[in-house]
Amino acid sequence: MERLEQQMRFVTEIGKLKGVLRQTVLAGLGRQENSAEHSWHLAMMAAVLGDHAPPGADPFRVMTMVLLHDLVEIDAGDLFAYADAEQQARQDAAERAAADRIFALLPDDQRDRLRGLWDEFTERRTADAKFARALDRLQPMLENMAVGGGTWTRHHITADQVLAKVGLIEDGSAPLGAFARNLVATAVAAGILAPAPA
Amino acid sequence: MERLEQQMRFVTEIGKLKGVLRQTVLAGLGRQENSAEHSWHLAMMAAVLGDHAPPGADPFRVMTMVLLHDLVEIDAGDLFAYADAEQQARQDAAERAAADRIFALLPDDQRDRLRGLWDEFTERRTADAKFARALDRLQPMLENMAVGGGTWTRHHITADQVLAKVGLIEDGSAPLGAFARNLVATAVAAGILAPAPA
Repeated sequence: MERLEQQMRFVTEIGKLKGVLRQTVLAGLGRQENSAEHSWHLAMMAAVLGDHAPPGADPFRVMTMVLLHDLVEIDAGDLFAYADAEQQARQDAAERAAADRIFALLPDDQRDRLRGLWDEFTERRTADAKFARALDRLQPMLENMAVGGGTWTRHHITADQVLAKVGLIEDGSAPLGAFARNLVATAVAAGILAPAPA
Repeated sequence: MERLEQQMRFVTEIGKLKGVLRQTVLAGLGRQENSAEHSWHLAMMAAVLGDHAPPGADPFRVMTMVLLHDLVEIDAGDLFAYADAEQQARQDAAERAAADRIFALLPDDQRDRLRGLWDEFTERRTADAKFARALDRLQPMLENMAVGGGTWTRHHITADQVLAKVGLIEDGSAPLGAFARNLVATAVAAGILAPAPA
């Protein structure tokens, strides 16, 4: 039973992700999104958008990667996508320490496999990681569109800043990149995203 | 682009699952769990508890099944596990109507594949479905233990009623069934679950 008990301690610990709040405000609910439901949404995107993944991408690995990609936020918290370089460096160190602690709750073979997937997501070198990162970048854009501005409006983000992030989506999926570029154009035309700083 | 646009309408629509509240109250957060974060937790359980699945179970199919199993609640709402037979029959009809509407947002091939997985989960005849249903039955028990009673206390549920549900876990996984049976014994010993109606 020792193996199952270790797994259950991990299962209980990760429930804390439901309490990690993101910047995104959810349409129709008027509250911030948490990182667990965000991760669920990405996994469903992996389930239906796999057609648009790069050749060689493995849907099961992508799905597992997006499910676990934010577990480190249980210790490190969520960092807004438009943070500066110094904030990002501090966050990276905190996330690595969190990965060391959280994945170590698992039996060694699973610790290595899941930690490996997290490292792969972070490094963004494989087809699976590039596609997973594209989904993670696209989902908040969909949420911002649904609420008519969201974090873009609240943080005075302009279309040129959003487009600078679309490159990462294009790198993971040309069709999703084109979709995102079109979404930004639609947001500008609708007046919910300013083209550039005034 | 028509295919991608259909997929994106589905992706946007299913975000509503974040607003469907379950009976479960989350430890440390003092709020009800929603069905999206619940589904995320089940998918992570599928990722780490696969060792205990029946022979022939496919982890990717189980994971996809638990991710989508509650989408019908967007229209039908969540029904408490200890509902009576008449409530359950009404719920089943509402859920089938919801599945018809929601999966039809997808391109036909994906509608058929995902609806097929939902039907399979509901019918609980395959190894994948039996294991997925076991996870779905086990997770609220873990949450109730973590809060020291939860829905058991609030709805005056007794150990004999919980044990009547453990059969479904045993049917999906002997080790998880044994774990659940042990968990009920621990809850009774700790005084957070009454053995039988007073």
